[in-house]
Amino acid sequence: MDGRVREHAEVLVDWSARVEAGDDVVVSVAEDAHELGVAVAEALGERGANVTTLYGSSEVSRAYLKGVETRVEEETGEGETDAVDADDFDSDPAVDRAIFEAADAYLRIGGGRNTTATAGVDGDTRRAYATARKGAREARMDTDWVSTVHPTRSLAQQAGMAYEEYREFVYDAVLRDWEALADEMARMKDILDSGEEVRVVTERDDAPDTDVTMSIAGRTAVNSAASVAYDSHNLPSGEVFSAPYDTEGEVFFDVPMTIDATRVRNVRLAFEGGEVVDFSAEAGEDALADVLDTDPGARRLGELGIGMNRGIDRFTDSILFDEKMGDTVHLAVGRAYDACLPEGESGNDSAVHVDMITDVSGDSRMAVDGEVVQRNGTFRWEEGFAAEAE
Amino acid sequence: MDGRVREHAEVLVDWSARVEAGDDVVVSVAEDAHELGVAVAEALGERGANVTTLYGSSEVSRAYLKGVETRVEEETGEGETDAVDADDFDSDPAVDRAIFEAADAYLRIGGGRNTTATAGVDGDTRRAYATARKGAREARMDTDWVSTVHPTRSLAQQAGMAYEEYREFVYDAVLRDWEALADEMARMKDILDSGEEVRVVTERDDAPDTDVTMSIAGRTAVNSAASVAYDSHNLPSGEVFSAPYDTEGEVFFDVPMTIDATRVRNVRLAFEGGEVVDFSAEAGEDALADVLDTDPGARRLGELGIGMNRGIDRFTDSILFDEKMGDTVHLAVGRAYDACLPEGESGNDSAVHVDMITDVSGDSRMAVDGEVVQRNGTFRWEEGFAAEAE
Repeated sequence: MDGRVREHAEVLVDWSARVEAGDDVVVSVAEDAHELGVAVAEALGERGANVTTLYGSSEVSRAYLKGVETRVEEETGEGETDAVDADDFDSDPAVDRAIFEAADAYLRIGGGRNTTATAGVDGDTRRAYATARKGAREARMDTDWVSTVHPTRSLAQQAGMAYEEYREFVYDAVLRDWEALADEMARMKDILDSGEEVRVVTERDDAPDTDVTMSIAGRTAVNSAASVAYDSHNLPSGEVFSAPYDTEGEVFFDVPMTIDATRVRNVRLAFEGGEVVDFSAEAGEDALADVLDTDPGARRLGELGIGMNRGIDRFTDSILFDEKMGDTVHLAVGRAYDACLPEGESGNDSAVHVDMITDVSGDSRMAVDGEVVQRNGTFRWEEGFAAEAE
Repeated sequence: MDGRVREHAEVLVDWSARVEAGDDVVVSVAEDAHELGVAVAEALGERGANVTTLYGSSEVSRAYLKGVETRVEEETGEGETDAVDADDFDSDPAVDRAIFEAADAYLRIGGGRNTTATAGVDGDTRRAYATARKGAREARMDTDWVSTVHPTRSLAQQAGMAYEEYREFVYDAVLRDWEALADEMARMKDILDSGEEVRVVTERDDAPDTDVTMSIAGRTAVNSAASVAYDSHNLPSGEVFSAPYDTEGEVFFDVPMTIDATRVRNVRLAFEGGEVVDFSAEAGEDALADVLDTDPGARRLGELGIGMNRGIDRFTDSILFDEKMGDTVHLAVGRAYDACLPEGESGNDSAVHVDMITDVSGDSRMAVDGEVVQRNGTFRWEEGFAAEAE
C-alpha cells in the first residue's frame, strides 16, 4: 500500500476526527475507496475504537431510488402524476437512525466509480428521499463527522487530470502541516472576528470587475482546519469563513462550478440591500436562476470564505477542494452556518447553500474596515505584501 | 446487467427473506458482490422496504484485527504473552448491536476478492473477536437473515473453475423452482419426523465402507428450502437435516473440505455410544484432531443432512454449496440446531459445527427404521428406485 494512504488515514482518524479508545466509529466506504477504508480500519484497530463499515455506493443508492420510482409508478392510477414524494419513503428509517444515534464519529470516504452515477434519478425523487432522511441526517451531523475522498479515476476524470497526477494533487491537499495552517488561519479569524465590514475588489483586464462590500459585525469566523476540534468537517479543509449580511455591489466568479449536474461559468451577481437584484452566467444561467428562486434566503449570502490551503493549486470541479484553494475567495448564497452566529441568533435560512469562487491571486484586494488584509493573493503577514497599490 | 443477477436478487428478497413493505433491511455487500448488491437494492426499493448497506470486506476486517494486534503488542510488557483476548475488544459494540436490534432482515452477500484474505491474522485474535461480538451476532441471528454469494473470480478460483463456468454453476444452484423442491423435501422431512433410526451404508471398491446408525427419535427435521419461512437461512439451500444421537459405526467422508484453512481429505470416523472413538484423515489429520478436541460435544454428532439440490452437480470447496448437493449425505460433529429439538430440550452443545460430506450417488443406501429411502442416489418416490439391492 502507498504510504500516503496510511498517512491520509492517520490524519483522518487522529487530526480530523480525534478518535479515542472505546469510540464507536462508523466508516462509509465508496465503491473505489477500498484502499483508504482498509487503512482507516487498521488505524482504528490500533486506537482501540470499534468500527462499523457502511458501503457508500452511489450505484446502490441509484438502484434503490429507481426501485422506488418503479413502485410509485405502478401504484399511481392512470392520468395521475407519478412523481415520488417524501410520503413514498419511511419517515423514520430505524436502522439508519440507530446507527448514527449510537455512533461517536462518522468518517465518510468518498470515491465512487462514476461521479454521475445517480444521473437519471428524478430530481423530485432525490429531494423526497433527502426530506425523508432528515432525522437520520441530523443524527449523523450530531456525531464527530468528517468527509474526505480517496483519489479515484472517476474523480481524476472529473478534474480533467491523469490518475497519477490527481493522486499527487489529493495528497498535496490532504497531507499538510495542519497545526501550522491552523495557526496561520487563526490570524485571519482574529481579523474577521474584530472586523465589521469586508470589501473584496478585483480589477482584471480580461474579466468584469468585482467590488462588493458586506457586514460581518457580530459574527464569528470559523477556522476550518480539517478537524472536529475546530468545528471543521472536511478533509482537506483550509478556509476561514464567516456569515456576512447587508451585501452591496457586484461580484464576478471566474471559477466554473457544477450546479445540479449543469456546468455553470462566469457568474455575475449584483447585490442591493443584501439581496441579489441582478445576475447572469455565460453558461448554465437557468440552473443559477433555479437556485436563486428556491426561497427568499437563496438570494442572500450565507457565507464568505477565504481559501488558505496552498497545497491546492488548481481547480478540479470539486467543492471539497476548490473552495479551500489558496488565493481564492468564495461566497455562498443560501443557508448560513450556526457556528458563525451569536448564540440563539438565526442567520440566513434557505434550503440551498451554493458556493461560488473567485480567483484573487492577482489584481485584487480584500480589506477589513478599510485596511487591506490580502493583496494579489498575499496576506499582510506574508513576505512581499504591499500595503498600498503600486 | 445479466438478467440472472436480477433473478438472484428477487429470489433472495421474495422467496428467501420474505421482505415486505416497511421492513428495515440491512444488506452486507462483499468487495466484489457489488452487482448483486445493486440488484438487491433495486428490488428492495420496489418492495417499499428501507435499506442500509454494510461493506462486508474481509480486507477491512483483516486490517482492523491487525491494528488490534499491533496495539496489544505495544501495550504488552516485555516477556509477557501478547495474544489478543476478548478483553481487548469492546464487549458491547454499540453501533453493531443497534443495527441488528433495529433490523427486520439481514441479507449477507458474500463474494470477496480473495477467499484467504484473513490468513495471517492470529487464530486467538479471530476467536477473541468472535467472542466479543457474541451479542451483536445473536441480535443478527434474531433477524430474518439469509446468506448468499455473488459469483466472483475468487470463488471460481477456490472451486478450481473458470469464471464463466462458475457463474453457470452458481445460478444453476440458486435459480431453482424452490416451491417444487420444498414439496419434494417435505417428503423426506415426513419420513425423518416419523422415523426413529437412520442407517447409512456405502460399499465402494475404491474406498473404505460406511455403515453407521443413529437415532433421530423425538427429533424434528428441517426442510431447508432457502427461505426464512422454512427456518432456512442459506441461498442456495436444498437439504433436509435433523439432529441425531446415539451414533454407532464407521463413516468414510470422500468429499474434501477445508478446516481452519487446512485441506482435509478422506476422513474416517468410528463411533461408539454416540462418540467418536477413532478417526483418521489422509490429509489434514491434525486440523481434524483440533476440531474433535475442542470440547466434549465436538466428538458427538450435531447434524445429519441429506443434500437434495440437484442444481449443484460438483463440489466447489464451499460448504454453502457442497452440503446441499443432490446425492450426498453429510454429518456434522458439534453443535445441534435448536429447530431440530423438542421445545425446551437442548441438543448436543459445542463451540464447533463442522460438516463432512459423503457421496451417495452409487453403491449406497440410506434406510429409516429398516426401510430403504434412498439407494444409489435415487429416492424411493423417484423413477428407477430399487427397493432391493440388485
